[in-house]
Amino acid sequence: MTTGPAKPPIRDALVAAAFQLFPERGYDQTTVDDIAALAGVGRRSFFRYFPSKEDVVFPDHERSLADMTAFLAAGPDDEDPVERVCEAARLVLRLYADDPVFSVQRYRLTKQVPGLRTYELSVVRRYESALAHYLRGRFADRPDNALRADVLAASVVAAHNNALRGWLRSDGEGDAAAAVDHALDFVRRTWSPDTGDGSPGAAATEPDDVVVVIAKRRTPMWRVVRDIESALADD
Amino acid sequence: MTTGPAKPPIRDALVAAAFQLFPERGYDQTTVDDIAALAGVGRRSFFRYFPSKEDVVFPDHERSLADMTAFLAAGPDDEDPVERVCEAARLVLRLYADDPVFSVQRYRLTKQVPGLRTYELSVVRRYESALAHYLRGRFADRPDNALRADVLAASVVAAHNNALRGWLRSDGEGDAAAAVDHALDFVRRTWSPDTGDGSPGAAATEPDDVVVVIAKRRTPMWRVVRDIESALADD
Repeated sequence: MTTGPAKPPIRDALVAAAFQLFPERGYDQTTVDDIAALAGVGRRSFFRYFPSKEDVVFPDHERSLADMTAFLAAGPDDEDPVERVCEAARLVLRLYADDPVFSVQRYRLTKQVPGLRTYELSVVRRYESALAHYLRGRFADRPDNALRADVLAASVVAAHNNALRGWLRSDGEGDAAAAVDHALDFVRRTWSPDTGDGSPGAAATEPDDVVVVIAKRRTPMWRVVRDIESALADD
Repeated sequence: MTTGPAKPPIRDALVAAAFQLFPERGYDQTTVDDIAALAGVGRRSFFRYFPSKEDVVFPDHERSLADMTAFLAAGPDDEDPVERVCEAARLVLRLYADDPVFSVQRYRLTKQVPGLRTYELSVVRRYESALAHYLRGRFADRPDNALRADVLAASVVAAHNNALRGWLRSDGEGDAAAAVDHALDFVRRTWSPDTGDGSPGAAATEPDDVVVVIAKRRTPMWRVVRDIESALADD
């Protein structure tokens, strides 16, 4: 189903057998023995590759979690941490986008089986924890660093999943990477406001002239920002 | 364990029995029959109140979820939706803060039993979905309303849980409500920038004079905001 140089053929065969049987017999009615038999191996071989039947549904997440953790740890200290966690989320997206047929099939299966939804929640939670752990370190010298890290990690995961779910619901049509980029950009703009109104390119190429904003002291900050943004948008 | 006029005594007795047995025998070794017997009722009575053994560990969440959904639905259309979801999160906090002994006991149990952690993730996910559902409606006329709703809901839940976990880890010492208020204020400041630097009162009581900000067009928005904030903070 998914291929790669690091994966032994038996592992792939087990995943392929599982995803052949689940639609035919139903997830709950398919046993580990059924899967192993169709893959041409014994029950014990199955458990050499997967701790449980649920794990064969999400065969790449352990490796992906390890990849993400390594990617975060390798980040240079002068890189914007918000940018780094967004890039980490894009790594996870690739796992889905690289194999749309498998991803959509699994999405439909997961929607039908409550146990798989719960399993998926635990997986998502582990990604979120990995992001939060990295951010706590990067925010160590800022007030509320753990709070800041947890909220940002949750925001990145929610944005990623919003875009991913939209793509899966549309049967893997369209550009998943573009959708996730858009969603992550939304988070990045909320958290790194120096990219302004979402058109940083435009602002950066404007001439170096001056904007004057006059506001009553009681004016809410959002209104001041809005006024500045429209001043910047006008020629 | 928890008391209230709406709860029949048998339900309370089952919860009390369960939380007496879990530390004595271990969660996995305690059966529904054991719990029912100690509460002085039959197995069938147990299942009249709780669908499973896991549910007796979180006896109030179904009602709390219903309360939160009703609270969100009853919100006036002119109320700031960010404020409304923060207030909804405070409702959930009260569930924990009103009974610190029970909450801490459950926290310790949940940490030890993977199945309960997974169960709790599903509960948290349902709170988050309720918040996101409300926000999608309130943001209906804004671009990216679903994305905005999902990310904000996740932020509120992450902030709430960060504060709640800190309080539970400290064995329920200190003011849980104050900790959650602080965490939610962090989210509110990120999302409703009109509260500016977190001291909205100060700005609101200032005289109605004028602040002039002059910025080069290329100045990042965050720097403009920072300059305005320090101008507002100065006398």
